[in-house]
Order: sequence, then C-alpha cells, then structure tokens
Amino acid sequence: MWPLSEIHTLDLNSKGLELEVDELYNPDGISLIDGICKVGGCSGSFVSEEGLILTNHHCAFSAIRKASTPEVDYLQNGFLAPTRADEIRAEGYEVRITESYRDISEEVLSAITDDIDPADRTQAIEKRISELEKQVEAEQPGKRAEIAEMFIGKTYVLFIYTYLKDVRLVYAPPRSIGNYGGEIDNWIWPRHTGDFSFMRVYVAPDGSPAEYAPENVPYQPKRVISVAPEGVNDEDFVFILGYPGRTYRHRTSHYLAYQYEVRLPAVVKLYDWEITVLESIGENDREVALKLASHIKGLSNTMKNYRGKLQGIRRIGLLEQKRQEELALQTFINADPERQSNYGTILKEIEVLYDEIRQRTDYEFALKYLKRSSVLLNTAYMVYDMHLELEKDDLERESEYQDRNLDRTLERMFLRLKNFHAAADQARLQNMFEFCTTLPPDYHIPPVNKIAGSKKPAKRINRYITKSLTKSRLDDPNYVRSLMELSAGELDASKDPFIQLAVALYPVYQQQKEIADTRSGKMDRLHGLLIDIKKEFKAADFVPDANGTLRLTYGHIRGYSPADATFQYPITTLNGVIEKNTNKPPFDLPEKIITLYQNQDYGRYEHPELHSVPVGILYNMDTTGGNSGSAVLNSQGQLVGINFDRVFEATINDFAWNEAYSRSIAVDIRYVLWILEKYSGATSLLSEIGL
Amino acid sequence: MWPLSEIHTLDLNSKGLELEVDELYNPDGISLIDGICKVGGCSGSFVSEEGLILTNHHCAFSAIRKASTPEVDYLQNGFLAPTRADEIRAEGYEVRITESYRDISEEVLSAITDDIDPADRTQAIEKRISELEKQVEAEQPGKRAEIAEMFIGKTYVLFIYTYLKDVRLVYAPPRSIGNYGGEIDNWIWPRHTGDFSFMRVYVAPDGSPAEYAPENVPYQPKRVISVAPEGVNDEDFVFILGYPGRTYRHRTSHYLAYQYEVRLPAVVKLYDWEITVLESIGENDREVALKLASHIKGLSNTMKNYRGKLQGIRRIGLLEQKRQEELALQTFINADPERQSNYGTILKEIEVLYDEIRQRTDYEFALKYLKRSSVLLNTAYMVYDMHLELEKDDLERESEYQDRNLDRTLERMFLRLKNFHAAADQARLQNMFEFCTTLPPDYHIPPVNKIAGSKKPAKRINRYITKSLTKSRLDDPNYVRSLMELSAGELDASKDPFIQLAVALYPVYQQQKEIADTRSGKMDRLHGLLIDIKKEFKAADFVPDANGTLRLTYGHIRGYSPADATFQYPITTLNGVIEKNTNKPPFDLPEKIITLYQNQDYGRYEHPELHSVPVGILYNMDTTGGNSGSAVLNSQGQLVGINFDRVFEATINDFAWNEAYSRSIAVDIRYVLWILEKYSGATSLLSEIGL
Repeated sequence: MWPLSEIHTLDLNSKGLELEVDELYNPDGISLIDGICKVGGCSGSFVSEEGLILTNHHCAFSAIRKASTPEVDYLQNGFLAPTRADEIRAEGYEVRITESYRDISEEVLSAITDDIDPADRTQAIEKRISELEKQVEAEQPGKRAEIAEMFIGKTYVLFIYTYLKDVRLVYAPPRSIGNYGGEIDNWIWPRHTGDFSFMRVYVAPDGSPAEYAPENVPYQPKRVISVAPEGVNDEDFVFILGYPGRTYRHRTSHYLAYQYEVRLPAVVKLYDWEITVLESIGENDREVALKLASHIKGLSNTMKNYRGKLQGIRRIGLLEQKRQEELALQTFINADPERQSNYGTILKEIEVLYDEIRQRTDYEFALKYLKRSSVLLNTAYMVYDMHLELEKDDLERESEYQDRNLDRTLERMFLRLKNFHAAADQARLQNMFEFCTTLPPDYHIPPVNKIAGSKKPAKRINRYITKSLTKSRLDDPNYVRSLMELSAGELDASKDPFIQLAVALYPVYQQQKEIADTRSGKMDRLHGLLIDIKKEFKAADFVPDANGTLRLTYGHIRGYSPADATFQYPITTLNGVIEKNTNKPPFDLPEKIITLYQNQDYGRYEHPELHSVPVGILYNMDTTGGNSGSAVLNSQGQLVGINFDRVFEATINDFAWNEAYSRSIAVDIRYVLWILEKYSGATSLLSEIGL
Repeated sequence: MWPLSEIHTLDLNSKGLELEVDELYNPDGISLIDGICKVGGCSGSFVSEEGLILTNHHCAFSAIRKASTPEVDYLQNGFLAPTRADEIRAEGYEVRITESYRDISEEVLSAITDDIDPADRTQAIEKRISELEKQVEAEQPGKRAEIAEMFIGKTYVLFIYTYLKDVRLVYAPPRSIGNYGGEIDNWIWPRHTGDFSFMRVYVAPDGSPAEYAPENVPYQPKRVISVAPEGVNDEDFVFILGYPGRTYRHRTSHYLAYQYEVRLPAVVKLYDWEITVLESIGENDREVALKLASHIKGLSNTMKNYRGKLQGIRRIGLLEQKRQEELALQTFINADPERQSNYGTILKEIEVLYDEIRQRTDYEFALKYLKRSSVLLNTAYMVYDMHLELEKDDLERESEYQDRNLDRTLERMFLRLKNFHAAADQARLQNMFEFCTTLPPDYHIPPVNKIAGSKKPAKRINRYITKSLTKSRLDDPNYVRSLMELSAGELDASKDPFIQLAVALYPVYQQQKEIADTRSGKMDRLHGLLIDIKKEFKAADFVPDANGTLRLTYGHIRGYSPADATFQYPITTLNGVIEKNTNKPPFDLPEKIITLYQNQDYGRYEHPELHSVPVGILYNMDTTGGNSGSAVLNSQGQLVGINFDRVFEATINDFAWNEAYSRSIAVDIRYVLWILEKYSGATSLLSEIGL
C-alpha cells in the first residue's frame, strides 16, 4: 500500500505497467488519480464526464436500503434511473477527491517537546493538527484540509480534498445479483457476487460543491477512467489506486497477542449474539428487517473478518514470527551501548502498556459497547457531550465538535437515529448492562450498578430499560433538535431518562478518556522510536500503515492454494453462479439470468477459453477495508474490475502481508457490462461509459 | 460395480492391471478374493496369515465404543493390544468370507407364474428363497447360503459364505486421528482422517467357526493381501474388491422424484432434529454420550449423505436426465406394436404405484419411524411379533425369525437394548407420537390417537410416555428373556405398557405389510420387464445394482473440480492435517503428531514430491456404503489404501454414476504405517504384516 510519494521509486514499468508513471500520478497535471474518488466509506471511479461513479453494491447499500420500502423495494428488485431526474438522492453520502498532499511532520511535531507529559502530548498534537487544518482551509476556501498520521507519533501528511455533497443513486442490480451469496460467501473465493452499482455526483450550476438541490448539475471530473470490456487473464499485471482504511503491521507482538487472545474473540462473541437477536427481531417484519439490515450486515462482516484473522494468525504462526523479529531487534539494540541507552527498553515499555490494557480490558469493552448498544443512549450522550464541548474555544474541543466538523457530526447522529428500533435497543442494552454488573468491584460503573441493584439485577435492569424506552422522546429528531437549544445546565435538569443516564455516565467516560489519552501519548512516543530503530536495524525504508489516504498497490491476477490439495483458479464464471443457485436467498438468482445462461446469450463478454461470462477475478494485490469499490486497472490503466472483498485467509492483511494467502477479489468488468446489457437493458448507461 | 461373473469380460490388463485376471478371481483356486472379507457392515482385508484384518476405524467404532468407559476410554485414547490375550472381544461382529456363487434365477422364479397375485408373488419368492437356502445349508454344514436378488424380480444368485463369529479388536488409533474432522469433514475432500483399525478373527482350535472362546486360535485365511508401503501416485491404476451395499440406478424417474421431493427432505428434517436432541441429552455426561455416540454418528452420516444427494440430483439435473431417457425408451416401445403390447404401459404403471406411495407417504413414514423411535417399543414389538411368527412353520415365517436366522436376530435385539437411554426414548417417541396426530383422519393410527385424545394431545402423550417408561421393565434383558418363555396369549395379557402398545399396533403394521407386499410384488414384476426392454433398447448388458454381494470396481487416482474455479488434487498430506488442527474436537490432534511433524520425522513414508506423509487418496472408482473398509489395490494387487468415504457430490452414486463428480476416498497406506510406526510404536503389528 504505497503512498503517492513512493510511486516514482517502484519502477512499475519493469513490473508490467505500460503507461508512463506520470500518467498514474502527476501533482502538476492531470493523472489517473483525478479519476478516483472516495464515496461513503469506499473508493470509486469516475467512468463518465458527467460525474458517473462506479463502485460496489455494498457501498451503495445503505442508500439503496433507505430508498426502499416494502412496497417499492429497490434492494430486492434493483434500480435503474430512467432519466437523470429519477436518480435518487443518497442521503449521508459524500464524494471526496484528493487535490494534493505534502509532508507536514515538522510543523505538527513542533507542538511537543521530548519531555512532555504523555496525556498532554496527545492533546498538544491533536490541537496543533486542528490549528493547521483550520489555517489551510482559511487559505483555500471550499477545500478541506486533513492531516493524516502516517507513522504513529512520527510523520504527518497534509491532504487537501474537495468534498462534494450531492450524491445520487443511478443503478443497482437486485440484491440477488449484487449481494449473491450474502454472508455465506462473504470473505470467500470462488466468488460469484455482482457487487457493483453506479452513483452520480452533482455540483452547483457554477461548478462549486453544494448540498443536494434539484437544479444542481453533474460534476465534471478532471479525468475519466475508461473501461476495458475485454477484461483480463490469469497472470496479467493489475494495479489499484484507492483509499485503504487501517492496517496495524507496525504494531508489536504485544498488540497482536492482545488482539488474538482477548479483543477479537470478545467482539466475535458479542456480535454473534447481537446478530442472532437482531435477526429474530426483524424476522416477521420486512420494514423492521430493512431498518436493521445495514447494521446486521456490518456486524456479520466484521465477525467473519475477525474469525478469518484468528484463523490466519494461527495458521501462519504470525505471533511467533513477530516475537522472533522482536527478539532479533532486541539483540541488535543490545549489541551497541548507545542503541541500548536510546532504545533498550522500548519493547518492554510497550509490553507494560499492553499489560495495563489487558487488566482493564473488560471494563473498557463494557464502556465502549454500553454506549454503542443503544441508539438513544448514544444520541443522549452526544447531545450532552456536545453541549459541554461547545462551551470551549473551537480548537480546544474534541475534533468532531469543532466548527469545521460539527455539521457532519450532527448529520451522522440524525442518520443513525433513523435506524432506531426499540426492541433492538432494549435487547442490546439489557445485554451490556448485565455484562457491566459482572465486572469486579474496582471496575464498577456506578450509574449502572445503581440501576441493577444487588437482588435480581436482570429483572431490575429490564424494568429500567423498558420504562426508559417508553418515556424517552429522543427517538423524535425534532425533540433532539430542541435539546440543542438548551444550555448545559438546562440539559442537566432534563427528565429524559437517557439524558439523565448520559449525565451520570459522563464523568466515567471522561476519566476513561484521560487514561486512554495518557496511554496513547506513551504509545505514540514509543512507536515513533520503534520505527527509528527498525529502520536502522533493517537498513530499509518502510511503508507506513494504511490510514485512509490514497495508496497504490500492484500485482497480478493469480490463483492460490487455500488448503492442502486445493487450488483455486483466479477467474470465476457464470457457470459457477448457476451452480450455486438454490432459488433460496442468498442464492436466489433472478429467473432471467438463468434463461440468459440457458441460451448462452453471452454477447461480447464470453471468455475465449472458459466459454462463459467471467464473474469474479482474484489477484495478489495488497488491500484492506476502504479499498472496496476501487477500480482494478490493467497495464493500460483501464478498468477491468471493481475490488470488493478479500479471501478469508487475507483478513490478516491488517496485521501482515503474506504472498501465499493475501488475495483480493473484484467483480469482473465483463460481468458488470453483461448484467447492464443483457439483464437490465441499461443502454444509455452503457453508452455514457463509451460502449 | 461389476459382479464376479463379469470380471473376465473387462480386459483389465489393457486398463492397467499387471496381474493375470485369474489372480483376482478364480473359482477353482486361490485368488485375491480369498483375502477379502466382510466385517460388521463393512469390507475388510486379511493382511496376515494369523487372521489379522485391516478395516476402517468407523467400522470398528461400535466395538471400540463398547470396550470404552469414561475411565478407560479407547475411543478417546486409542487401543493397541500388547499381546494376543489382550485383544478385546468385538461383541456383535462377525466376519463373512465368500466361498462361491452361482446363478439360481430359474429355481427361484419357478415359484411363481406370470398371472400370480402381486402380494402372493412377493411371498412366494421369499419362501422359495428360504427353502433353497435351507436346503443348501443342509448339504454344506457350517456354511451359510444367501440368495441375492441381482435385477429386481429377475435374476438371483446363490452365494455360499463362511461366517466367523469370534472377532476381536487389535488396534485403533485415538478418535482424534481415526475420526479426525468428525462430522464436519464427513463426505468431504480434501480429507485428513486416519480412518483405519485392525481386528482379528478367531476359530475353534480345529479350524471350524466358533463363538468367542479364550481357547480359540487365529483364523488362517487362504490368501493374504500384501501392503505396498510405497503407496500410489496421481493417475495410477487402482481397483477394489468389496461389498457395496445398495444402489438404485435401475429405478425410474418416479422413484428419483419421490426421493428428491419427498423422502430425502423428510428424513433430513427428522434426523436433524433428532441429532440436536440426542446431543443435548449427552452433553454433560460422557457415559450417556458414549451410549448415544454410534446412533448419532449414524444419523449424521445419513443426513449429510442425503443432503449431498439432494444437491447432486439438482446439480447434474439427474431427474431431467432420467425423464429424457424414459421418453426415448417410450418412443422406442411405441415404435413397434409387439413392444407396445408387451411393454407399452410399464412406465405408466410404475408412475401410478409411486402416486400411491406419495399419497401414503406421511402415514408410512410415521409407522416406520414410530417403532424406530423407541428402543423399548421396538423391543416389545419384536418380542410380540416373534411369538406369533414362531407359531408358524419355519419356512412360513418372516426371514429373520426362521430357525437359521433367529439367533442373530435375538443377538441384534439385545445389543440394541444396551443402548437404551430413557431420555432419548422419551424425546423421540414424543416427537413421533405428535407427528402421528397430525395425519389426516383416513390415516389415523388408532392406538396413538386414543392415547393423544383430542384436547392438549402433546401433554397427554407426554404423560403417557413418562408413565410407560417408568413402568416398563423391558430395559432389563433378563426380563425380556423371561418374556420369550411365555405363550403368545400370556404376552397378550402382559401389563407392560410397551407390550400393550405393541399388541395394539400389531394389526396396523400387519395391514401395512400386506399393502407393501402387494405393491412390491407389482413393482418387482414391472422392473423385471423394464430391464428386458432396456436391454433391447440399448442393445447392451447392464450391471445389476449393488446388493451387498462381492463386486469389482476399477479406476485411477484422480482429482476433480467440485465447483467453478476449484480443483482438488487427489493426494492430501500431513501438512493438511496440521493445517486443520484447532486443538478442539473434531480437530484436536494428539500433541505427539505435531511434534513428529515439526521434526519432519516421516521415515520411509515421505512422498518424494509432496515432501510430507500422504494421508488421503482420491479416485474415480464406483463405490457406495458397504465399500467402507475395502482395500484399495494397485496394479500388482497390493494394498495402497483403505476406502472409507466418498466426496459430497458422489453421494449420488446411489442413483447414478458421474465421471465429473464420482470420487471416493481412502486413507493412504503410508499414513496407516506412519501412525503405527511413529505414533503408536506398534512394531509387532508392523512385523506381522511383513514390514
């Protein structure tokens, strides 16, 4: 996951690229980068001069879901806007375009001294970052400045972005194509999911970013990515420019052991329970099910990812491998007195911090998921927190409450509120309250223990939650808006049970925040030092962990062996789609697809050797969450697929790269075009992308 | 699955066999056949001159289980008899050796005329078979005669067998090797199960068959199968001589549609429920779990097999294929007036019979599983049935109650009684009783409806079963034995609730038996005619369906593609065993195996290219249940593996052969020998088999 700054060092032409490297990225001109954007939490590509974006079905999922009702169910039946005017507003979506970047480490780090108190360190850096961002935005109105930490506590890069807010849904296949295989096939190869959709981004008639308005006009990207209807073949060179989310490869074995032994299993257990409960709540009511669908999808996705990680860490012996590396590093440090005095205790100090984390793990888990387990409690806490923060000077506030971020924070809060469902809040809160009561006395959460009492806590908790959910008016957005008008003191006196609970919990969370800040101040300093000594040890530069900024990855279309005696070919076909069909979700193919298959109506999209329409492609590129929706580009920089997943074994990408197992999955452009042409008859869309 | 009579027509040498065909089967001398036996429900091979038999772990499973207690748990820890005297009696096991066979169709069919009443037809043939068997046994004392129906209603073959009754357990690996992967991996390739065990069969000191006695001596087989420690490779020629159970390939599309649409799904549903219930009963009690283990294993195995069949039928479009064949056959019949008059209505008549079966399906399902759902009811019914049957002349009785079979029938009954567990009977009976009450009025089962009443039937049924299980003494084998002494009249008056229920149900089952006999009389005649006309149509001889008699199958070590973009290599290795290990059942490898792997202590068993110990092999031979335990022999007739399973897709072997999907699985002899040598240090066993 190479940062832009490294692209010129990679000698990509010798690896298979047939373009000039400047055509990929050119800070002084137009390049492929200008055809790439971020949309929602995903990556996307501009595939027409009229702001048309090709991304995943699962990236547009919540827009499709929100536009659907039991009567007009686009999730079920798919959607094709007959005209521009019929394109559906995708509320909560925004499109981000990277304009430029530069290293700003020195300006950030000048905010601290070596002997600064750890808790102050964190806050000083956060404040400096906010100052710098605010200053740049003042200089370049309409743009957004975001400073990304590249190496923890060490290097910082300033990115200038344009944000566009009027995003609309243009096309989505039915769920039975776009999410074919559902959770069963998620993180699985061979894959047969048509995980693609089209959105369009609009700007004000004068070309400036604007909120949704009917008179807006399509955005004209600086560069359009062209599609290659002939697709790719086994061992072809491919690359991706996209926005991978977060990786943790530079963390130590202590971090990994904590994840493997404590955190991942605990989250898997909680989510497993939660999915079962939420599914049973939505079982007999399509409307409720639609409301909970995105949340369940997210939980399932994370749960399977974590299971994959647990298997992967075990299977490649990653923990042992990290420990060996650290032993070797420690030996290197100890071999030189100066190194020993500067770096001798780093690993030990990190270990001590993780020991502390482990001691507090149940408590911190309880605090984190208590707030998350209820939309109403979460809303109440945010409203109260915001009131107190807004009394401070802009730059002193938590980042999300600073003037430049406040609108998006509120927007997200109100979007979440739309998914409130009382039974879901009830079940999840009950579960977390009960978990809190199992904590040892040192870690009691006073407001929770007061509610639970000592006799029949489950019953008392249940009574309390039932009463609170009945009484609270926080499910009404207008009521929440009215609370914003109150002073912090008036809010303190609110009779709303969730506001009262939030007020009671506030000092507990504040204390936790201080402890976490101190810890992360220490951690950041140590990781900064660790990178220094690792560079010295390995005499090599490192790629920083992924952090949501634009990166390049390249590789080849390539199969793999996930298990003894098993080999997976890197291209799947329509034959396999048909093979999996059971007529029951998630394998309930539309009848028309079956007919097209029976008639072998493959058009120009038939693979010459496989004699079927290619559906999925597999490659050894380095991707993670956030790379969803990325264009997979061929040696000519043409779009041949849309990245949407990794194989089960590659969920460990977040912790380590592995040539045998790290494989990512795209929907083949030939399947996209075949569906558009033969299934949906989307001729105007095809002609818009130049076919 | 070629019958012995066909072996000489196959030109096996051109296919890869490097032995004279006479060395395989020679009715006038010694051949490989004499080294093959049937043991329990499985096949086995004599691998030493001292009666040592190599078969599957799952074939010895119930012997190992019965020898185990929570304190001395051979199932868990494995077993190796230090000396002959320590070998453990395998109660209920017998070894069968095929002595000779001859076609006896004419003598059987002379019992019937063309215009015989269908119900009489079935009974007349059954009676004639019993007469002939009895007569042959009288001529050859000590031997057993069994007449097998080859083509339904058409050809019959007399087999002369020797049965040996003193079978003992010699060696079993721990369950974590012998059943590695458990139900998860059952019917699955790639496979890593060490599914093998050794048993030994004993005879009286004079060499004659004898019941278990300490002074018995090992049986000396006429021929010993030698093992080939060098194993096989991809595409090598292999063959199996074994006892495949039952296939149904000559049945029509109506049979298949009935299986696909009605019977298989119903059984899957019932077994799925039953497994959950029985597992929860044994959950916290290892002793109870051991008692129920064999039964649960059987249910799970059948359930997954049926699921595979359902998938397979759908995937290869078998129903449509059969229907097309029948359409072509009907066209051929209709093209000629004589054919039309002789065979014109056969298919239609068979269809009508299946319509009848479908109408009665819930009722017949209820009757079948009602009796099976309770060990005590089953015992009661057998005791009562036996009393009535024993009043008849020997040859007039149901086959299992004839003098020559009575002992084994009783033995089986008492063996089953040992697995009685009240909670299991209670749950299963309740379930079937409740199912019976859902049948439409025409299909009421009076004794059940009487118990259930019309108000709150579930509650009344529960009360009745609870009371009956408390009151009945049938769980005591001595009590059951005492019932044998009573007259049928005395039994009628028994106060035992299950005897009373059996008496009440008797007429219902008798009526069902008459209906089934009539139906199968009609069915047999029609299938006989069907074979005639199919032979004429295809101008070819057919292989009769498998029927538990000795058959040959041959083919090659060969991988396959079970799904789009997936290829499975036909040899798995120890690497894959380690890969699957999770330290939790069914993937909880003994620590010693892991150490051996880490030390790469492979000895002579390392595969030269795979650089690991081969564990499983895959081949395209035609096998079914009953082939379990069969020696997989190389072109020289040496043992290279022990067949134990098929791939999921090959569960349809029972209905049709398919070159793409029909693959069977053996444990590789190299893994067997490696486990014996390196894991168990079973040197005397190794030297006994000549290594």
